[in-house]
Amino acid sequence: MKPRSGWHVPMSDIARNTINPIRRIVDTIELNPHPDKQMIALSIGDPTVFGNLEPAKVVVDAVVEAVQAIKFNGYAPSSGTATAKEAIAQYTSTPEFRVSAKDVYICSGCSSALEACITVLANAGDNILVPRPGFPLYQTLAHCIGIQTKFYDLLPERGWEADLEMLDAQIDSGTRAIVVNNPSNPCGSVFGKEHLRRILEIAARRRVPIIADEIYNHFVFPESEFYYIASLTDEVPVLSCSGLTKRFLVPGWRMGWITVHDQNHVLKDVRVGLQNLSTRTIGANTLVQAALPTILSDTPAEFFSATLQLVQANAEIAFKRLSEIKGLKPVMPSGAMYMMVGIDMARLPEFETDLQVVEAMVTEQSVFCLPGKCFDLANYVRLVLTVPQQFMHEACERLAQFFADHYVQSDADPSAEDV
Amino acid sequence: MKPRSGWHVPMSDIARNTINPIRRIVDTIELNPHPDKQMIALSIGDPTVFGNLEPAKVVVDAVVEAVQAIKFNGYAPSSGTATAKEAIAQYTSTPEFRVSAKDVYICSGCSSALEACITVLANAGDNILVPRPGFPLYQTLAHCIGIQTKFYDLLPERGWEADLEMLDAQIDSGTRAIVVNNPSNPCGSVFGKEHLRRILEIAARRRVPIIADEIYNHFVFPESEFYYIASLTDEVPVLSCSGLTKRFLVPGWRMGWITVHDQNHVLKDVRVGLQNLSTRTIGANTLVQAALPTILSDTPAEFFSATLQLVQANAEIAFKRLSEIKGLKPVMPSGAMYMMVGIDMARLPEFETDLQVVEAMVTEQSVFCLPGKCFDLANYVRLVLTVPQQFMHEACERLAQFFADHYVQSDADPSAEDV
Ligand SMILES: Cc1ncc(COP(=O)(O)O)c(C=O)c1O
Ligand SMILES: Cc1ncc(COP(=O)(O)O)c(C=O)c1O
Repeated sequence: MKPRSGWHVPMSDIARNTINPIRRIVDTIELNPHPDKQMIALSIGDPTVFGNLEPAKVVVDAVVEAVQAIKFNGYAPSSGTATAKEAIAQYTSTPEFRVSAKDVYICSGCSSALEACITVLANAGDNILVPRPGFPLYQTLAHCIGIQTKFYDLLPERGWEADLEMLDAQIDSGTRAIVVNNPSNPCGSVFGKEHLRRILEIAARRRVPIIADEIYNHFVFPESEFYYIASLTDEVPVLSCSGLTKRFLVPGWRMGWITVHDQNHVLKDVRVGLQNLSTRTIGANTLVQAALPTILSDTPAEFFSATLQLVQANAEIAFKRLSEIKGLKPVMPSGAMYMMVGIDMARLPEFETDLQVVEAMVTEQSVFCLPGKCFDLANYVRLVLTVPQQFMHEACERLAQFFADHYVQSDADPSAEDV
Repeated sequence: MKPRSGWHVPMSDIARNTINPIRRIVDTIELNPHPDKQMIALSIGDPTVFGNLEPAKVVVDAVVEAVQAIKFNGYAPSSGTATAKEAIAQYTSTPEFRVSAKDVYICSGCSSALEACITVLANAGDNILVPRPGFPLYQTLAHCIGIQTKFYDLLPERGWEADLEMLDAQIDSGTRAIVVNNPSNPCGSVFGKEHLRRILEIAARRRVPIIADEIYNHFVFPESEFYYIASLTDEVPVLSCSGLTKRFLVPGWRMGWITVHDQNHVLKDVRVGLQNLSTRTIGANTLVQAALPTILSDTPAEFFSATLQLVQANAEIAFKRLSEIKGLKPVMPSGAMYMMVGIDMARLPEFETDLQVVEAMVTEQSVFCLPGKCFDLANYVRLVLTVPQQFMHEACERLAQFFADHYVQSDADPSAEDV
């Protein structure tokens, strides 16, 4: 071996290819808020940052009790304690949809659950299908280990339903999974039963398993209903990912899980794989695991409905006000905690990209939304709906001002209502 | 694309290659404890399982306070909060050895810290050097992503110091890191300053960075001293891994960290890589992060010395008693919480392997130790030293009985003391 002449310590390919698109984009944006206007960040998908949303008291008490018991400090089995798994199985089950403790794998947050599911199903060179617009973590987790991603579109004009033809057409011999995110980040859309069945029909016919990112399970406005996609099939194998993060308002606790749905016993190998993967980092915090039975069964229904009311009220405020603004086209959500708003770039000749619009909204109005580009869809911005109501109002008024300042009427368009 | 004719869902190569050697070996052992003897498990490296070792009250209280503050439920930055990083930097620093918050990356347990360090330094096809006997997780984490491992031996006759010639000889052009585990699992050995300097000298000459697994930092008997290997070099870049797990007796909390030591600024790229990797799963529980400043600065010295006293007393009991037993050769540890005991297989003609001996010790005496094979060293067993003292006594007596029953004198050996 030739002696090394100096220190040369590059990072590995995996580390280099672990790219967080949101950070990569946001870091290039110049954020210079207007000095006279308090910044309103509608960008951060963390419902706790404004201090208006706290976990339920019973949840906090359950963790305090677990800490004080001095009984839950040791290692748990790497995929979770039997008691916590049982609690998750009961929480997920309905009379028609049975999940048992042996189907549950506890992970450190839903992100770790997704990492395990993507890693267990695909090899470098294989591909998985992901929604566009979609949560960019799927790509981060796939690309870093050489798994490719192919998009299927969600269609704003159909309430962000999947383009089923495209979904079908994108499947090839290397496709190892379809990622279905319902309710959706960034769209706030909720798939109906029929639409989920159509997705399942394609997965069944093409024999592609589904990774269901259901972290916003039950996080839907009263007019909608949430269905676990696995509850609607007796054929397609499904790995469903969820956790406490969103519904229980505790993202920092890092408590997530996978439930394996496999009525035809085709995931035996995959279950072994999930177990194997869990031994790398030995799972989730045991204090939260110990509190899980109480958290999942005793959180009052009013807690969940209060969060949803706040989100829905903000959605209605934003939808109503932004619909009146020329140049904006909000799409009303049905759940989760986001709204996508289309931007009519053709009428904003000062700007070339939605990124520039976002930048200018910060500079002039101190309102920060994530550009659609973060979710692979140009000419949109994503609004977070968990902010205190007065911020929502204020942000909308500022956007009205912004678009009044920049929107240019097109005389050439005779059909435009505003002529 | 040819239609898939049935469901065929194999696990990926990464999942298949994630092999936990301990589980693989232990699962093949037939464990049928003697019905009249209570099982004594000296196998589990979890200091909390016997209920005799609890975290300090200040530690428990700090977490309770963090939970009740309702201020630490949101996402932390993926590599940890600034406050927690600062606390770790202060905890690790001495007047001569400065660590700053920007050098700290918080992870979900020391296992995740090791995963990040191995993943960031090596590509598939590269290799890292690992100690033999050694903690098998290094191999698990390397092999699953195609990184090879090469052994350097620890020598029992030299108190488990590294075979430096072998270490040097094993380095080749594909070597990306040397893993140094000090204090050692499974040996309980503690490297002196001089020995650490010799390892550093090789690393410097061959220009190979060090991954220091220092999860047992400060976990040494009063006669020994612990040195961070990074504190003894101004040349070799070191990624040191540690956490709360062992010293604070809370393995289930999953709180670990990396400190980056890089006096010559050769790890700029690697720091970016560690940051990238942290975005995959977004780090450690925020409640424990919030409690970290108090935990690290207010845990009383007596708490640590009490644990060490218990471990050292057990080490002395076991060493003294097992030294008297024909067929056993204990090696006295200086720290951590383990002792390796050699088995003279030549005098146990009924058994072919240490695995069979371990199995028979369970069947006849209900004493379970891990076979050396779990750590890649045959003809040894590893004893865990955190058990209540009466169990240690009882286990030793049962081992005495076991070896009295099976040890066969060799008449052919004139030098044997026992002739
Ligand atoms: C769709 C979706 N999946 C997964 C996650 C990650 O959840 P966790 O914080 O539990 O890792 C998020 C977080 O924003 C999300 O929006
Ligand atoms: C040498 C060594 N390193 C790392 C670990 C893992 O520590 P953690 O539980 O913090 O992941 C252990 C646990 O036994 C160990 O013995």
